[in-house]
Amino acid sequence: MKKIKELAIVGGTHGNEFSGVYLYKKWQEHAELVKRTSFVTETVFANPKAFHENKRYIDCDLNRQFTAKKLANHTLANYEQSRAKALNHQLGPKGSSRTDFIIDLHNTTSNMGPTLILLQSDDFNKKLGAYVLQKMPEAVVVFEDQKSVADHYFLCSIAEQGVIIEIGPQPQSVVRQDVLDQMDDMTQHVLDFVELSNLEQLPELPAQYEAYYWVESIKLPESKTGERIGMVHKNVQDNDFKALNKGDPIFTLFDGSVITYQGDETVYPHFINEAAYYDNNLAMSLGKKRIVIL
Amino acid sequence: MKKIKELAIVGGTHGNEFSGVYLYKKWQEHAELVKRTSFVTETVFANPKAFHENKRYIDCDLNRQFTAKKLANHTLANYEQSRAKALNHQLGPKGSSRTDFIIDLHNTTSNMGPTLILLQSDDFNKKLGAYVLQKMPEAVVVFEDQKSVADHYFLCSIAEQGVIIEIGPQPQSVVRQDVLDQMDDMTQHVLDFVELSNLEQLPELPAQYEAYYWVESIKLPESKTGERIGMVHKNVQDNDFKALNKGDPIFTLFDGSVITYQGDETVYPHFINEAAYYDNNLAMSLGKKRIVIL
Repeated sequence: MKKIKELAIVGGTHGNEFSGVYLYKKWQEHAELVKRTSFVTETVFANPKAFHENKRYIDCDLNRQFTAKKLANHTLANYEQSRAKALNHQLGPKGSSRTDFIIDLHNTTSNMGPTLILLQSDDFNKKLGAYVLQKMPEAVVVFEDQKSVADHYFLCSIAEQGVIIEIGPQPQSVVRQDVLDQMDDMTQHVLDFVELSNLEQLPELPAQYEAYYWVESIKLPESKTGERIGMVHKNVQDNDFKALNKGDPIFTLFDGSVITYQGDETVYPHFINEAAYYDNNLAMSLGKKRIVIL
Repeated sequence: MKKIKELAIVGGTHGNEFSGVYLYKKWQEHAELVKRTSFVTETVFANPKAFHENKRYIDCDLNRQFTAKKLANHTLANYEQSRAKALNHQLGPKGSSRTDFIIDLHNTTSNMGPTLILLQSDDFNKKLGAYVLQKMPEAVVVFEDQKSVADHYFLCSIAEQGVIIEIGPQPQSVVRQDVLDQMDDMTQHVLDFVELSNLEQLPELPAQYEAYYWVESIKLPESKTGERIGMVHKNVQDNDFKALNKGDPIFTLFDGSVITYQGDETVYPHFINEAAYYDNNLAMSLGKKRIVIL
């Protein structure tokens, strides 16, 4: 497998997701905690202004600004659009990036537990997922396979390899010790994997494991004028990565009536009732469970 | 007991506490749900602008603006200071209020469950607490005894009798069905109590019950320059209304060290790690458990 020489850990891409910000501060003071022998680690505070204003973002979502097209468009000049260009200059540039691997740290209000999100199912990522699950059996691996990294808008797509560590439930603008500890642990496992992979000392990994593949995001029930008229059904709330079958309740309208799921295949909801997705009236993501074979 | 003739239910005092806002919308469409025979009910949307901007408040916390002194000071003219005067005119005026009873609906990110907060331990409130616990055994009653209603800054202090219905855990800017249902249920029980009290048809109530009395709010660990240097200990997180004794862990500093509670008396934390209290670096409130005798 390819060698990673430069690695960046990014916290505070969303200003009100506090775990990454407080880990960034800790690692700024104790750089030895994220150091390994075979690569250089740097730590980055992506959106300090949003953190200081205690918001997800100032002008627009920073983690949607990293397509090749947006990065090249100099008329996109608000705060996050400018931060995206600055971060691309600092860590990239995307397409021929100085940084080989980016770990981007996020929190969710959803009950997803410690989740590793991988943007492509290549050999490196499949092994990384297996390693993290081996060390942290309570973790979940989600693949959000991207057809084209150039078209991708996530910060971690600056580098050739990028992962998101996504841990919840944690309300926005709060730091929970359990969530902070899980994020610290998962980050350490990812750093160890890169080190062992570089040194060709990976342990024996399971031949296969279960993971989830993102399929689609679905919206909350809306009126014709786009107003929310319902909410996630209480049976679905907090049941991230639990099976949802045809006929199961999925939404409750504010008038009390219940909407059931009508897809033919079993799906696995996640990002259920994530606060930040209300902007776009998104209710949850749906995934499929698949066996990953190494 | 005194008769209640006019009652107001207020939602959206904090714009990102969604349960009250969606119940307000429901009751606007179905006024019959909050109607009773012996009093008039009106529903009020306290801070629509903050809701539309998806924030707790625009300029300052609305639920801190209702002291007699602030209401009389016309130089206090920002959005919430103006809303406070408008609401005082609409429902009050405080001191000789047209409205006899205000129910103010709130959410917390803390794991407090359905909580009824009472501002004085008079006969009416003590019976109200007993009635709500009889109908809803999972509820908790908290007394925040106020020496002077004139000096009190809560919206519900406009009327002679006011209560807060405070339900969590719910992240800011999210609507959870379980929390919405609990808020609806508790509000109905309070309305029923007022009706039965007015009609002198209250059922037999238990002679005594357990409740919590607010003692103090305590701060997160801070550096000399006021920066947060620690968080709520994981043993305390989510354990609202559970006993905390001398020597129990209460905070974990970001350097890993643990701070223990040093008070001599057993206390009962609540509003543990409430997101909105980070503005002032508040970690939690501490209460004492007492037997309320009717």
